[in-house]
Formats: sequence, structure tokens, C-alpha cells
Amino acid sequence: MGVSGKIHPIDTRLEELGLVLPEPPKPAGKYRGSIRGDRLLFISGQFPSSNGRLVYQGRVGDELSAEDGRDAARLAALNVLAHIRAATSEWNEFGYLVRLEGYVSSAKGWHQQPEVLDGASELFAEVLGEQAGHTRTAFSVTQLPLNAAVELVVIASLLII
Amino acid sequence: MGVSGKIHPIDTRLEELGLVLPEPPKPAGKYRGSIRGDRLLFISGQFPSSNGRLVYQGRVGDELSAEDGRDAARLAALNVLAHIRAATSEWNEFGYLVRLEGYVSSAKGWHQQPEVLDGASELFAEVLGEQAGHTRTAFSVTQLPLNAAVELVVIASLLII
Amino acid sequence: MGVSGKIHPIDTRLEELGLVLPEPPKPAGKYRGSIRGDRLLFISGQFPSSNGRLVYQGRVGDELSAEDGRDAARLAALNVLAHIRAATSEWNEFGYLVRLEGYVSSAKGWHQQPEVLDGASELFAEVLGEQAGHTRTAFSVTQLPLNAAVELVVIASLLII
Repeated sequence: MGVSGKIHPIDTRLEELGLVLPEPPKPAGKYRGSIRGDRLLFISGQFPSSNGRLVYQGRVGDELSAEDGRDAARLAALNVLAHIRAATSEWNEFGYLVRLEGYVSSAKGWHQQPEVLDGASELFAEVLGEQAGHTRTAFSVTQLPLNAAVELVVIASLLII
Repeated sequence: MGVSGKIHPIDTRLEELGLVLPEPPKPAGKYRGSIRGDRLLFISGQFPSSNGRLVYQGRVGDELSAEDGRDAARLAALNVLAHIRAATSEWNEFGYLVRLEGYVSSAKGWHQQPEVLDGASELFAEVLGEQAGHTRTAFSVTQLPLNAAVELVVIASLLII
Repeated sequence: MGVSGKIHPIDTRLEELGLVLPEPPKPAGKYRGSIRGDRLLFISGQFPSSNGRLVYQGRVGDELSAEDGRDAARLAALNVLAHIRAATSEWNEFGYLVRLEGYVSSAKGWHQQPEVLDGASELFAEVLGEQAGHTRTAFSVTQLPLNAAVELVVIASLLII
């Protein structure tokens, strides 16, 4: 419940979609999961993990299919949402998503990273509606920390309340 | 023409340089080409494309020369400018460039990425003068989405008008 | 000495730690070392260099050990601090670190990038205390410009004074 004592519309939408946000994943080193900088909220890189375990590892287009990659992006996006909810008084200070950088661990010569990242962008649109906003940048990398399949880095805007 | 009905000095400079800005390239997935976050403007990753077609594909230092790479960076920079112009009421709300991240698809062992990205930085200086500003970060990657030679990610500041 | 004529606590801490900040490294191309965007300070990508010479080159987990990588991250972090100090009237306008992106040139199959980047995060914590703040994103890359071992990209917040 939000500070007003009412359920926030975004939480209602999550429930309608049958989605449960996890606890925001703990940082993997000596840094914070999220921090404010002026009226922006910066979220540390998020991975396709669940309960502290990486669910999708390996390269898309080779060890993993594009469909696996989409699912990985969607799972990492849930972790992003968990951080935003925790950092915005349960959505009450959340403006919209500003920027999504998506890193896809990719097989050599495999170039369909935008398709994979649509897994995240579509989840954001379903849950956040107009507040999904966001510019996006897709990257193809040969490996990610912890051999993750996907890493998402998000900046959101904050409301002044 | 700007909102004032006068041609903006940046458009005059473009004309003097014989440069014509394209339409801002459409996003390659479910996201936006640009978005405001507080007084900053975030632009989605831009490629060396023209009329929806990637003009420079492949790795610099191998399939492409450093000179090709510079031209690719310059072309991608024109697409960045097209987005900024469209998002700032034809430059009237544009402050200056804050950050340029440049990703260069590079042959193994080839390390002259800064030279390639100067193609973008020099175009910005020619067109925007003092408003070119910008910090820069160069990256060498083994491949980019759609096999592009270069990808540019830009943040600009906005004037409060 | 700060504008007030007194030594800033951060400079005192640097001295206690026996650390001397270098001159802010010059840009490697046609851009600026740092720039303000609204109340944020953007720093160009910093390398493990000293007196204009790259001290750590090559891939971590192969040509360099994880310990070398940590030292490289620490050296690059000193260059970041040098830029921040110069851009904030000797710390007087410095708020806190918002974001650290860390790029580690990595051997194939080597995934301990977070350990390397803790070299930077720990230095920031020692020198800046609570103002170290920062979210972090770790990247594994196959090569960096100039064959550097590590590259750090930082955004800081500014105080309004």
C-alpha cells in the first residue's frame, strides 16, 4: 500500500497481470542498488535472477534461443521494477522510465538484440502504461558478469511531491 | 523555423555547412527515440543509417578503415542532431551536449576508437559551436546490433524557457 | 584549499590516506573532461593512467591478475576524483557519486568483474565516506580503447550553493 493507504494503480496492474515483484536484489559488491541524483533515479545493473540465483546464463543466439533471451530480459525487468518501487515510496514518487540500456550476451554474428530487449520494454508498457516512457540502447556483448544472459541499466524520473 | 518565426542560428550553420538533417530515425523496437528526464534530454542509441538503411556495417580496423569509421560516426551524429532538433522546438530549448558514449565495432587488437569518434565530436563542434560541450566515453565492441559499425548515445541539457 | 580558505574534509582524508590526486587527465580527443548537466556532473571515461601513460594494459583474468585489475580500478578512480575536485571548486559543490559504470577488459570465460570494480568502490568509500553513494554497473569487454585494463564512467550530483 502506498503512503496514502490506498493501493497504487501500478500495484493493481501488477496483480491483474498475475505478477509478483521480488525483493530488490542485493548489490553484488560495495555499492547501492539505487540512488537519486537530482530528480532522477539511477538503478544499478539488473540481471535475470530470482531469489539470488541467476536463472539465465550464457549467450543468446547460441546457448540460448531468442525466446529465452526475451524471457531473461523480462525477468531482469521485474528486478528493475522492484528497485523502483522500493525507492519511490511504493510508486508515489515515480515519474516515468527515462532510459533503458540493454546488454545482451550474444553469439558471434547474432544481431537480433532489439528483439530480446522488447521482452523488457513490453513488460514495462504492460505494467507502467504511459509511465513506461523510455529511450533505449541495445548492446551486444560477448560475455556479462557472472555469465548472465542479459543486463539492464535503467534511469527513471521522479515526481516532486 | 523556430517558434519565434526566425531561422535559428544552428539551422543557419547547418545550411552554411551544406548539411541537411534527416527525419529522426524511428526506434527499432518498443521504445521512444528521445525523452526528457528533468532538464536533460536522453536520445536512444543512433546508428550510421540513412533513410532507414544502415550505411556502415562491419568492424572498423578490418572490414572498414578508420576513415570509414569516422564517416560512420559523422552520419550517426547527424541522426542524433535530427532527434535533438525535433525534441527541442527546433533548437529553442536546446542547451548543450552533455555526454556522448561512442561504441565502435572493432577488429581484435585495434585500439584507435577515439579517432573514429572524433568524426562525431568534430561535426558537433562545427554545427553547435560552444553548445557542442560534451564529455565522451569510447568503447570498443566486437559487434553491434544489426552489425552497425558505430553506435552513439547522447544526453543533452535543456534550457528552461 | 577550498574557496572558504579552509582545507576541505575530503582533502584532509586524502592526506591521511597518503593519497595525492593527479592533475585531471586530458581528454584523448575533441571533447571535455567533465561537464555539468543540470545538477549532475558528467565525467568522461577514465583509465588507469598516471602522468599521461597507461599503467595497466591488457585483459584481466589472463594477461593481468584480479589483483592487478583491482589496482587498475583504484588508479582510474583517482583520476575520476581529480576531475571531480577540479569541477566542484575543490569539493565545495560536490554532492555525492550517483553512478559508476565499470568496464573491465576480460579474458574469455572470466566473470569476476565485480571483484575488480570493488577496487574503485572501496577507494571512493575511504575517501568520500557517505558521499561515495553510487549505483554501479559492471561490464566485461574484450578490449578497451588504447588496450586499457579498466575504464570508469562516473556521474556525480552537485550541491546548489
